[in-house]
Amino acid sequence: MRILLIAALFSCSTTALAADPLPSWNDGDTKAAILDFVEAVTTEGGPGFVPIAERIATFDNDGCLWAEQPAYFQLAFSIDRVKALADDHPEWKTTEPFKSVLADDLKAVAGQGMKAVAQIAMVAHADMTADEFEASARDWLNTAVHPKLGRRYVDCVYQPQLELLSYLRANGFKTFIVSGGGIDFLRVFAEEAYGIPPEQVVGTSIKATYELRDGVPVIIKQPELDFVDDKAGKPVGIYQHIGRRPLLACGNSDGDLQMLQYTTIPRNEEDDTPRLGILLHHTDADREFAYDRESSVGRLDVALDEASSRGWIVIDMAQDWATIFPE
Amino acid sequence: MRILLIAALFSCSTTALAADPLPSWNDGDTKAAILDFVEAVTTEGGPGFVPIAERIATFDNDGCLWAEQPAYFQLAFSIDRVKALADDHPEWKTTEPFKSVLADDLKAVAGQGMKAVAQIAMVAHADMTADEFEASARDWLNTAVHPKLGRRYVDCVYQPQLELLSYLRANGFKTFIVSGGGIDFLRVFAEEAYGIPPEQVVGTSIKATYELRDGVPVIIKQPELDFVDDKAGKPVGIYQHIGRRPLLACGNSDGDLQMLQYTTIPRNEEDDTPRLGILLHHTDADREFAYDRESSVGRLDVALDEASSRGWIVIDMAQDWATIFPE
Ligand SMILES: [Ca+2]
Ligand SMILES: [Ca+2]
Repeated sequence: MRILLIAALFSCSTTALAADPLPSWNDGDTKAAILDFVEAVTTEGGPGFVPIAERIATFDNDGCLWAEQPAYFQLAFSIDRVKALADDHPEWKTTEPFKSVLADDLKAVAGQGMKAVAQIAMVAHADMTADEFEASARDWLNTAVHPKLGRRYVDCVYQPQLELLSYLRANGFKTFIVSGGGIDFLRVFAEEAYGIPPEQVVGTSIKATYELRDGVPVIIKQPELDFVDDKAGKPVGIYQHIGRRPLLACGNSDGDLQMLQYTTIPRNEEDDTPRLGILLHHTDADREFAYDRESSVGRLDVALDEASSRGWIVIDMAQDWATIFPE
Repeated sequence: MRILLIAALFSCSTTALAADPLPSWNDGDTKAAILDFVEAVTTEGGPGFVPIAERIATFDNDGCLWAEQPAYFQLAFSIDRVKALADDHPEWKTTEPFKSVLADDLKAVAGQGMKAVAQIAMVAHADMTADEFEASARDWLNTAVHPKLGRRYVDCVYQPQLELLSYLRANGFKTFIVSGGGIDFLRVFAEEAYGIPPEQVVGTSIKATYELRDGVPVIIKQPELDFVDDKAGKPVGIYQHIGRRPLLACGNSDGDLQMLQYTTIPRNEEDDTPRLGILLHHTDADREFAYDRESSVGRLDVALDEASSRGWIVIDMAQDWATIFPE
């Protein structure tokens, strides 16, 4: 009898675990739509079944997997280096976006968009080896603390998204980051933070060169933009880097509009494979931030209007997420 | 007794299978070095052990995974389209590399190197959608036959390399192609031919753009070179696309010199992780082709000289491979 009870308890708890792979998501339409979608594409013999090799999921990063207010985190990282190099570049005092950086006016920098961010990252990170860059980014990520959230930047990742990534991988998905942020910066923390290996990170890049330096191979990061992985650049980045149309795409701003279109819009009448577009709507000023159409960082306007006609899910952060950050 | 015999036979045959994952490789130093290397990096607790996530293997394609004589196969594919478009481009009659293409002088084209090949591919394949390109490449690959080998180009893959790729994957390696050939062309056949998915193909690329055409998302291939994944471009391609230093790299020409350096040369005194560089030396005029230092296609000269000082394995095709092509 006692053994039966223990067995029943054990069975109960494993069933409960299996039944809720997304414990930080509140029950509701959003969570149900995600669970239904994954069930549809993984049910062998079902009408929506998709082979494992084609289960590609792409996630934006800033404001989608981790926070992005009051400014992109990579910008915060870049600022220390820009300031350190400012004496050698007197022209920056009058040239944007450096002028705003040196004036500590992060809002003005962010307002100039991802390209400005990439430009700062480029100047701040160029003329060093890939290893040197990785070491400096790693140092910063290990120590720097978010001014409002009061935790390390790497701990400003979203717990519900960590669960979603794990859930997708447990169901045969390959999870990718497709971000307007710098690919090298992302790779420093993506594996530990999200379980996403470097080869599954797509991002904005600067040029690089190879040479033997004193007989030792080095990659040198060059001060020239290579590719901007934002807006219409996201489907191009997916095409060039992954070479396969995603089954699921998740973003949070107009920078993700084209990625969600590319993922979800049927190509022709026969194209009836289930595809899921997801937008994260920042509606939680208490626990995180609330912003959308008027924000200079992570503006969500056109994509929000397009969501209903395209059938994209819109996550209401305040309503759909029981927890925001990991404990 | 009979059961014991059967059991013994069965045990024997499974042992034999387990003992020879590379049946098309003749026993000898080359095969032994590969088996020893894989054992070293996969033996938990051993001094050379490498976690699965870091087991990256990169393979050149032309002349390494499939044949490349008398000209790169992608060139053969491109020529039909160049000829078809020639009437609209009278200037090609006097401009290289098109002049040589129209004169059926493949040797002259190949002699102009990978960049000329990419240039032909670019003009031949531009101003069409990614889907249109894929369809035309697929058609060609399904039907076109190699002039000397008398088999479809996709069947000119090397059986021993297929076994090596499978063996590496069975030991936790992620296998990548890192080729001077066009990334889009490679992706059309790499998954079926080699078991290498599109997202693990790195190659030379042309620019692409995204648009909605009549409301349907399309990627348009643009007539502008984006990245040349050859020579010093190979470590750069690995850095940008994979973001991790390979554990094993295999090539067949001077175009792979820098990839093998990048993979194998220790970065400092503490860097004692086992790394394997492999060169395929085409020494078999009877079963395939014999060429090295003087060949305009797949020249192997500087890298061959560097092999012994770097400790790279050189596959002697005639001696080390029992079989060349799949039956
Ligand atoms: Ca974002
Ligand atoms: Ca080659």
